[in-house]
Order: sequence, then structure tokens, then C-alpha cells
Amino acid sequence: MNGLFYLVPAAAVLALFFAWFFFRQMMKESEGTVTMKEIAQYVREGAMAYLRQQYKVVVVVFIVLAIFFAVLAYGFGIQNSWVPFAFLTGGFFSGLAGFIGMKTATYASARTANATMRSLNSGLKIAFRSGAVMGLTVVGLGLLDISIWWKVLDFFVDDADTSHKMVVITTTMLTFGMGASTQALFARVGGGIYTKAADVGADIVGKVEQDIPEDDPRNPATIADNVGDNVGDVAGMGADLYESYCGSILATMALGASAFFGDTGMQMKAILAPMTIAALGVVFSILGIYAVRTSEGASLQKLLRSLNLGTNLSAVLIGVATFGIFYLIGFENWWQMSLSVISGLVAGVIIGEVTEYYTSHAYKPTRKLAESSQTGPATVIIGGVGLGMISTAIPVITIAVAIILSYGFATGFSFDTALLSNGLYGISIAAVGMLSTLGITLATDAYGPIADNAGGNAQMSELDPSVREKTDILDALGNTTAATGKGFAIGSAALTALALLASYIEEIKIGFGHIAEKGGELADQFAQLAHSSITQIVEHFNITFMNPVVLVGVFIGAMMAFLFCGMTMNSVGRAASKMVIEVRRQFREIAGILEGKQRPDYTSCVRISTKAAQHEMILPSVLAIIAPVLVGVILGPAGVVGLLGGGLGAGFVLAIFLANSGGAWDNAKKYVEEGNFGGKNSDCHKATIVGDTVGDPFKDTSGPSLNILIKLMSMVSIVMAGLTVLIHG
Amino acid sequence: MNGLFYLVPAAAVLALFFAWFFFRQMMKESEGTVTMKEIAQYVREGAMAYLRQQYKVVVVVFIVLAIFFAVLAYGFGIQNSWVPFAFLTGGFFSGLAGFIGMKTATYASARTANATMRSLNSGLKIAFRSGAVMGLTVVGLGLLDISIWWKVLDFFVDDADTSHKMVVITTTMLTFGMGASTQALFARVGGGIYTKAADVGADIVGKVEQDIPEDDPRNPATIADNVGDNVGDVAGMGADLYESYCGSILATMALGASAFFGDTGMQMKAILAPMTIAALGVVFSILGIYAVRTSEGASLQKLLRSLNLGTNLSAVLIGVATFGIFYLIGFENWWQMSLSVISGLVAGVIIGEVTEYYTSHAYKPTRKLAESSQTGPATVIIGGVGLGMISTAIPVITIAVAIILSYGFATGFSFDTALLSNGLYGISIAAVGMLSTLGITLATDAYGPIADNAGGNAQMSELDPSVREKTDILDALGNTTAATGKGFAIGSAALTALALLASYIEEIKIGFGHIAEKGGELADQFAQLAHSSITQIVEHFNITFMNPVVLVGVFIGAMMAFLFCGMTMNSVGRAASKMVIEVRRQFREIAGILEGKQRPDYTSCVRISTKAAQHEMILPSVLAIIAPVLVGVILGPAGVVGLLGGGLGAGFVLAIFLANSGGAWDNAKKYVEEGNFGGKNSDCHKATIVGDTVGDPFKDTSGPSLNILIKLMSMVSIVMAGLTVLIHG
Repeated sequence: MNGLFYLVPAAAVLALFFAWFFFRQMMKESEGTVTMKEIAQYVREGAMAYLRQQYKVVVVVFIVLAIFFAVLAYGFGIQNSWVPFAFLTGGFFSGLAGFIGMKTATYASARTANATMRSLNSGLKIAFRSGAVMGLTVVGLGLLDISIWWKVLDFFVDDADTSHKMVVITTTMLTFGMGASTQALFARVGGGIYTKAADVGADIVGKVEQDIPEDDPRNPATIADNVGDNVGDVAGMGADLYESYCGSILATMALGASAFFGDTGMQMKAILAPMTIAALGVVFSILGIYAVRTSEGASLQKLLRSLNLGTNLSAVLIGVATFGIFYLIGFENWWQMSLSVISGLVAGVIIGEVTEYYTSHAYKPTRKLAESSQTGPATVIIGGVGLGMISTAIPVITIAVAIILSYGFATGFSFDTALLSNGLYGISIAAVGMLSTLGITLATDAYGPIADNAGGNAQMSELDPSVREKTDILDALGNTTAATGKGFAIGSAALTALALLASYIEEIKIGFGHIAEKGGELADQFAQLAHSSITQIVEHFNITFMNPVVLVGVFIGAMMAFLFCGMTMNSVGRAASKMVIEVRRQFREIAGILEGKQRPDYTSCVRISTKAAQHEMILPSVLAIIAPVLVGVILGPAGVVGLLGGGLGAGFVLAIFLANSGGAWDNAKKYVEEGNFGGKNSDCHKATIVGDTVGDPFKDTSGPSLNILIKLMSMVSIVMAGLTVLIHG
Repeated sequence: MNGLFYLVPAAAVLALFFAWFFFRQMMKESEGTVTMKEIAQYVREGAMAYLRQQYKVVVVVFIVLAIFFAVLAYGFGIQNSWVPFAFLTGGFFSGLAGFIGMKTATYASARTANATMRSLNSGLKIAFRSGAVMGLTVVGLGLLDISIWWKVLDFFVDDADTSHKMVVITTTMLTFGMGASTQALFARVGGGIYTKAADVGADIVGKVEQDIPEDDPRNPATIADNVGDNVGDVAGMGADLYESYCGSILATMALGASAFFGDTGMQMKAILAPMTIAALGVVFSILGIYAVRTSEGASLQKLLRSLNLGTNLSAVLIGVATFGIFYLIGFENWWQMSLSVISGLVAGVIIGEVTEYYTSHAYKPTRKLAESSQTGPATVIIGGVGLGMISTAIPVITIAVAIILSYGFATGFSFDTALLSNGLYGISIAAVGMLSTLGITLATDAYGPIADNAGGNAQMSELDPSVREKTDILDALGNTTAATGKGFAIGSAALTALALLASYIEEIKIGFGHIAEKGGELADQFAQLAHSSITQIVEHFNITFMNPVVLVGVFIGAMMAFLFCGMTMNSVGRAASKMVIEVRRQFREIAGILEGKQRPDYTSCVRISTKAAQHEMILPSVLAIIAPVLVGVILGPAGVVGLLGGGLGAGFVLAIFLANSGGAWDNAKKYVEEGNFGGKNSDCHKATIVGDTVGDPFKDTSGPSLNILIKLMSMVSIVMAGLTVLIHG
């Protein structure tokens, strides 16, 4: 293989080294006073206790699924024999990334608060570099897993036809994406329910009923709330993006192997390109991380500019370097392919900016929303729903343009079906482009909950109010980066899912191959289908919009997005109710809590969130795994493609709506708190608190879980393609 | 033509006769006391004033569009020359149906209140039969328009090839659906904004701020609120279903003419079937209307049973008669085709039942929602959103099963592409089946706002509380039928849109024909395409899910549904704010209002709603018309099919979610008002009022407008097919 390949494991090791280095740097800092250490310890223990519970459930699911895949592979021979192992490693690495990121975050928060006492810049540096541990761990483990599997399969897969061997290797590797997806689903759904049950519960009794501030140590749910930030926003987000990152690279490799089938040289180049782009992305992410610094007394604007400098620098560098990569690898259309990648990069930036416009109170939409609080909570809710729905327009058009451009650049703007595979490869590599700077974008994202927890720690440890003021600046910045990060997570999920949709058809062909090998009447026909083009498979199964089965699939797919959201939304509602009842009970039964004379029972609240999350995540998760299997078995590939297309279309738009409504409500409340429309404790403030509370599950539970849903449904379909073909071939 | 055809105009005349008869019967009743008359007069004048304003805007839009179509038809020759006229009559008849229905409703409300003083049965009878005026006018005018156009085109269209002539006639007739759609859009959006601006505004200041009851004469917005019920729920709903009714019949005719192309006899039969099913539906609807009666002192349960008896009787009769119709017309597969129709009928009933389950407080979901008010308004909103999203599952699966069954029965469960047209005809006729009992289902629907207004009249006229109690029973019944009616409107819109999607491909062929006639290089190829099968057109434009243009269309379609909802949602928010400010001003500036010594200024509130609706309806409506044109011009037929598919998938599910969330919030509030969780004026009650207010635009503005959006986008695409083909052929 081309020597450039070794860039990939090298970048993986580099990323992991810097992750370790930043972690050590952070650990050298002091955790502050005894109380600060104690609070941090509570949060850390709660987070780890939850993660243990989550992994318990996940391990059971993984064992069941791995056995199922083994039966399909060894019992029925309709599945690649590597699938069970690939599936398990995907899940393991994803879980490991979440674990490391969360561990780091829980160590970093008290240290950030402590450093902020020294200077704002020190605080920012610790929080951001601790976030970078997460970012670099995700990309490092991702590229490591990819490199190892490539080498292992290259060694073991036995196929005289080199061209076909590459197709087999890449489609096999794709299935480790399902492991990552499954792990990510539980992390996102479970973490999302955990964090919002605690947050909503804490807010309702604390802010609304008792009029005590956020993170007040008198509130029994406050530790659970801080734990939630870590398990939901750090571990959940990390697992989500680990999955998008690997999924987009793997799908591109698989589509590349298929697009240039028969031309071994080009196949290798097409497989290499996404890996090396990702590898260079790691290098530029690290550069970008070092570029983030700020002066003392910096304003929010200045801090934001400083973070943006880092991410934009990485993006520009990777954009420029892409031209070199394609040229060096030896693509004839090297500059066009680079433009495909850049389409993805630019789309990611635009979606981030639009998200900021709609959700930051520096702009009109959120200010208007805050204004609507003058007529009470109902108009705040109506306004936020309206804002979120309208905010879907530009991101969708951006992704639409990116799809057309990245396809067009890869095919010389020919929409002839003969070039379909090349075009799909172009779309897929645009997703890789969007995600190439994940090392730093995820750092800005994981930074948010660390700063948030630092503020929580400062408040609970009753430090000097000036510290809280500084951490509030860091936290406000975190809110903006979190919103941008969400837009980015959704956009990349959409492009990745699109690439996976195309890969599904590839997997169908592999399925025909497996069945053909088993012989029988139709073996010849199946062998032929195994070597046909995407277009021929589409014709074979009549995957057109006039086929009622496809339309039914579209309906079910769209419905799945809503059903899944509704279930997670209700989970948060139920869990939050339990939390409210417990917090009310403590205020009522434990004398002296409200006067600060008696510590509330934090652990009982942590236990409620943990149990609720563990319990509530099972049904929606299992549904997300089973639905595509059922549709495949009952309706066949035409129904599955409809399901994935409908789920992707509706899920993508729904996810943007939920994220932006939630973000805008959050910041409308902050805008009122800054003294507008009556300021804190006014009726307007109370109305915006209702909006903020409703927005919590919108933006942190249901919305982000949709990213995983649309990817996971594709991954499940891909892994189950063999069974579907066996029944409907 | 087969003599059975004359059943159609006969049924139309019969329907219109009974509409006139019920109207006269109602008019004979007394309107009650002087105050009652006065109140009714206020509402009537407000409603008519609004309708005049709405029609002013609509006339401008119709003139512009008709000129545009005339240019396409006569200037460029890429459009059928009948289109401008068909478009205009569709709009005219739809507007007329809305006008008559609303006029009737505004005459009926005081009379219903007055009759209720006599007996509950008398009240029910007047309200229900007045609703029937609307139902019968809609079906009567629809069938009249269809019969007339059939005869006119049969006479004028000059085509030696009889089989081709029938295709031309039916696809031309389809374009009068666009007139009906356009009119319906403005009626639904404008009416929806009107009614909810008034309702939300009245509730926020009246119920929440001043603690005065619903419909209290001291509230300045109360007349506007009652006007709103008429313009939104009566005129808007009527125009919507007029459009679905005609659209499904016309689409089935067009698909029938195409499915049996070359076999003139079968074509005629296939064209005749939907018309005669609809005609018989009229007869059975009238029978059903006569079956609705109740005894004095009837409970809500009993009243509901009485209404259900009427609708179910009609449904069963039409189901049985369908077998006879297909047999008489001479279908070989007569009983299978009947089963296709019955699939639609049954699906309609199931969707209605499910809607009732999720939105009535007789069942668990709404009761649980009411319970969540114990933790405040935020959990009520979260719970309602969750409930609505989950409630999409069964209706979607029901429609999915109905699609597969109706397609399957029509093709003998062969999914071979050769039978595609027959299958699509099966789906389409299922939509006709679902809508065949519209005469009575619409009566149960229009009944709701009449009963609601009767209650309002009783309250404002300060009649004895026992009258209000009785009208409250009638009103509660109306809430249930309204929820069921909404489910039915959405379900039928989905099936109709599906039929229109298939018709779009037919229209593309006609487009090829027009261009071929103009000669030129590609004339031969185009002429061939004009006579090709649906599958060939699909292949020609590569309308598969792997084509990125289709996927981009799906994204944009899903986004359109959300954008459109967001815009209408915000319109209500803005208009309601204006209303709140005006009502607050009156309470502040006009002394003695709250003591009931001084009449508030009702007309200024009516004016605000009227102006806001007129102003706010323009942007979303124009967007809905322009989007499919733009997508057609830029992305071609593949993009349009994606747009329609994505819009249909996401729009259908979104519409169910919005309708059911809104319905459940409304009834959760009613459940608390009945004395649960603290009853009226408790904190729980206040929390549910927030839910109810948020639900208003969900269920009465944005949700129902989506029905039209998905149909109108299809209709616009159909009418603009010629232009699209010219550019992308």
C-alpha cells in the first residue's frame, strides 16, 4: 500500500499523545480548596456511577447483538464472518472515548474554577485543553481503529480478485460503525435523559418554586445537574461524533472501493484519500488548539474570536492541504475532488454561523423571542417553536447545495447514472471534509460543560462572587460553542447518513455475493447481481419514488424520527417529575436545608437520575435498532431505502428545529437576566424560564439523539443487508 | 358514456337540494332574545367583513396566476389551453362552498342556543343539520364542477385517439384542483391565523390576567374569538376538504385513464368508478344525517354514539355498495377493487379513533398530561409535545398498511412494475373511499364551531346558566368531533397527495406531448416519451433514491413543512401580541368594562384579527406556491418528486403531531376544569391554560395548513409540469 497510509496510524498516535499530554498538564493544576475538591469528587463519583450503569445495559445489548450476528455469519452464512468482531471493537472504542473524555472533564472543572481565580486566560486554557483531550481522544481512537482493521483485514481476507478484496474489506469495516452507533445511541439517549431530568427537576423546584439561584448548594438536585452535564454533553456528544467521524471515513472508503471497481490503483487511491485527509486534520487541529489563547479581562466577543481563530485556522489549513493530498495521491481530478471536500467544510461553517444567528441573543430572533415574554409563557413557547422551525431553512439549503456541489465536482457536473458512484463518493468525502477538524471543534464543544461545571463548583463552594462572574463569561461562551457544535453535529450526521444510504446498496451487493456462494438455483443470477452497478440494484428492487413500498418506507422513516423524539421527550418529563417530587420532599422533610444549615441528600437525586436514565433509554434504543430490521424483513430493500430517506429527511430537519428552539429559549432567558424586559425575577423572566425548561429536552435530549437515530438506522440496515437480500432477493 | 355517469350530477343536485332544505329549516327557527340577535349579528358581520378582505387578496392572486397560466398556454404553448379556466372555477367553487358554509354557521349559532333552551335534542339537531349544510354544499359543488367539466371537455377536446382524449380530459380537469388548493390555502392559513390570534389574545388577557371566564361579554376580544371559529374552523376546514374531495376524485380519474391506456372501455370504467362512488356517498351521507338524533338529557357518551351511528352507518353502506358499483360498471376484479376502497374507508375510521384516544380526556394519555400540570407549565408543554409525537405512530402505520393493501388488491398483490399504474389507481381510489362519506363527516366537523358559538352566544347574552351547561355538552362533543375530523382531514390529504404524486408523472407525459407538437429536433423523442409508461418516465429522469437531486428534493420538502409551520406559528404569535395589547388598553382606558357597566369596543379587536390575518397569510402562501415552481425550474422532475415525497412524509407526520398535541392540551385543561388536580383557578389549571394556548396555533393554524401545503405543492407541480419538462426534458 501507498506509504501515505502510515500517516494515518501516525496521526492517531500523535492525537493520543497530545490528549495524554493535555491531560497531564491539567492534572498538575491544583483542585483548589477542600470544599472544591469535595464537590468535584461528588460529581466525579456520580458520573462514574452512571457510566457504570450505562455500560452494564450496553454490554448486555452488545452481547445479544454479537451473538445474533455470529449466528447470521456462521450459522446461515449470509454475513461476513468478521462482523461480530468489528461490531464489538466499534462499540468498545466509542465507549472508551466517552469514558476518557468524561473522566478528564470531571477532573478539569474544579481546576478550571481554581485557575480562573488566578486569571481568565488560565481558566480558559485549562477548560479548553481539557476539552481537547476529548476531541483528540475521539479522532485518535477512531483513526487507530480504522488503521488496525485495515491491516488486519488486508492480511486475512482471502480473495484472488484484488479489486473485489478491497470492496469486501471496506464494507466489512463499515460494520464496526454499527458498534459505534449502538454505543453512541445509549450514550446520547441515556446521557440526555440523565442530564435533563436533573436540570429540569432542579430548575422547577429551585428557580421557579423556591427562588434560589442556579447551582445553589441548597438545591438537592444540583450535583445531579452537574453530573448530567458530563454524562450528556461530554460523553454523549463524544460518542455521537466518534460515530460520525468513523462512519464518514468508512463510508467513503467503501464507496471509493466500489466507484472504481476493476481499477485496483484508483480504488486504493480512493480508499486512501479520506483516511489521509482525516490524518492531516488531526495535525491541523492540534495547531489550532495551540492558537487558542486570550488576554486577561477579555470580553465574550474576544473569547469567541479567540476560539473561532483556532477552528477557522484548522479549517483553512485543511482546505488548502486537501489540494496537496489529492495531488500527491494521484487523482487526475485532484482540484475538483478538493472542491468537493471544501464544499463540506464550508457547509459546516455556514451551519454553525446560522445556528449562532438564531440562538444567540446578540441577534434579532432571540431578542424578539425574549420580547414575547411580555405576554407570558405561552407566547414564549409559540415564538420559540416558530423560530426553531423557520431556522431550518438555511441549514437545509446549505446542505442541499453542498450535496449538489460535492457530487458535481466529483463527476464534472454530469448527472449521468454511469457516474453515480463517483458522485456519491464526492458527497461522502465532503462529509469527511466537514469532520476533518473534529479534533478542535469537539474541543470547543466539550469545553462548554467543563466551564459550566467550573461555575457550578464555584457557586457550590461559595467562592468569591468575582470567580463566578468570570466562570459565567466562560460558560456563556460555552453556550454559544455548544449551539454551534450542535449544528455541526447535525450537519455532519446528515451527510454521513447520506453516504451510508449509498453504502447500503453496496452492502446489498455483498449480500448477493454471500448467497450466491451458497449455491442453489438462483446462484448465477445472484452472482451477477453481486457484481452489478448501483443503478442495476436500484432497478432490480424498483427503488423509485413510484413504488408504494418506498413511499411507505418514507412515511415510516419520518414517523420514526417523531416517535423516537416523543419517547425521549416523555422520558425526560417522567424522570424530571420524580426528581421534582424528591427535591420537594427534601425541602419539606430535612429541616434547615433552605437556611444552608443542613446539607441536602445529593446522592438520592443522583440515584434517581441514574436509574431513570438507565430504565428510560432502553425502549427508544431498542426501537431504533429493531425498526430497520423489521422494515427490511417485511418490505425489503425498497422499503429500507424509503425508511432511511424519510428518516433522514424528517430527522435532519426535526433535529435542527429542536436544537435551535432550545438554544434560543436558553439565551432569551439569559437576555432577560441581563436586565432586559424587567430582568431577574420579573414576570418576563419567569416566562422565559418556562421556555428554557421546555428547551432542555429539545436541545439536549431528543434533538441530538436524532443524529444517532438517522445514522444508526442506516448502520443497522447495512449490517442486516444480507438477511434482507436472503428474504427479498 | 355509461348511463351511470348521470348519477353524478344527480347526486350533486340532491346534495345541494338538501343543503338548501336544511338551511331553510334552520332559518325558520327563532334567533332568541334581542341581545342574542345582536350578538349573532356582530359575529356575522365580523365574519363577512373578514371573508371580503380574504377574497380581495385571493382575487389578486388568482388574476396573477391565471394570466401566468394563460401566457404559458397561449404564449408558449406548453400548457393545456383550458388550464386558466379550470383553475378559476376550482377557486370559485371552493370559495363559494366556504362562503355558504360560513353564512349558515353564523345564522345557526344563536338559533342553536335558543333551541337548546327548549331541549338538548333540538339544539343538537339544529347545530348538526346546519353543519350538514356545509358538508352537502362541499360535496354538491364538487361533484357539480366535476360533472360540468367532464361534459364540457368531452364536447370540446378534439382528439381522434379516444384513449388519448380521455387522458387529456382527466389531466386537464386535475388542474381545477389547483384552483381549489390555492383558495383553500388562503382560507386555512388566513382563517387559522385569524381565529387563533383572537383566541390566544382573548385567553391571555381574559383568563390568565383578569380571571374572567371564556366568552365573557366584558372581554373585548370575545366577538373576534367567535368570528374566528367561523372563518377558521368552518370556512377553512370546508375549503380544505373540498380540495381533498375533488383532488382525490380527479387524481383517480387521471390515473384510471392512464392505467388502462389503449383500452377505451376500461378507461371509461376506471374514470366512472370514483365519480359514482362519490355520488353514492352523497346519498348515504344524507341517510346518515337523518339517523342522528338523541333523547333529552343525553350524556356526552350518548351524544357521541348518536353522531358515530350516523357516520358509521354511512361508511358501512358505502362499503357494501362499492361492491355493487364495481360489479355494475363491469370491473373484472370488482371485489378486489372494492376492497381497495374499503382499505381507505377503514383507515379513515382507525385514524379517527386513534386521534380520539390520544386527545380525549376519557383516556390515559390526556389524563397523564393533565397530571403533569402538578409540576408546572413546562412539564405540561414537554408532555404534550411528547404525546403528540408518539401519537403519530399508529396513524402512519395505518396509512402505510392502507397503501400496501389498496395497491395490492388492485394488482393481485403483484409489485411488478408492469402493474404500477393499476396499483396507483388502487391507492387513489382508496382516498376516494375515505372521502366518500364527506357529506356527513364534514357535518360532524362544522357542527363543532356552531355549538361553540352557541355557547358563546348564551354566555354573552347572559342567558340562564343551565343553557350554557347544555351548550357546553354540545361543545364538548364538538371538540371530540373536531379532533376526529382533523385526523380524517390529514389522513385523506396524505392519500390524496400520494395520488397526486403519481398524477404528476402523468402530467409530465402530457408536457412531453405539448412540446413534441411544437416540432423541433427532439420532437420524435418527446412524442415517444409522451406515450411511455410511468416506469419509463421515472427512468428517463432517474427518479430514484440514489440520485442526489431527488435526495436534495426530499430535504427541501421536509424543510418546507417546518418552515411553513414556523411562519404561520409566528404569525399567530405576532397577531396575538397585538390583540393582547389592544385588550389591555381597553381594560385600562375604558372605565367600567370590568364591572360590566360599559360595552367594550368589539370592532377594534375584529379589525386587528382581520388585518393581521390578511397581512400574515400572504408570505407563507406565496412561498408554498413558488417553492415547487423554483424546484421544478432548478432541479427538474427528479427534484420535484423528491420535494413532494419529502414534504408529504414530513408534513403528514408533523401535521398529526401538531393536531394531537393541541387537542390533548385543550382537553387536559378541560379535565382539570372538571375538578381534577385542584380544578378551576388552581395552579394546575393555570399550567394547563398555558398548554391550551400553545396548542391553539398547533391544532388550528399550522397543523391543518400543512394538509393544504402538501396537496398544493403537488397541484402546483402538476400544473407547472409543462414548464419543467421544457427546461429539463
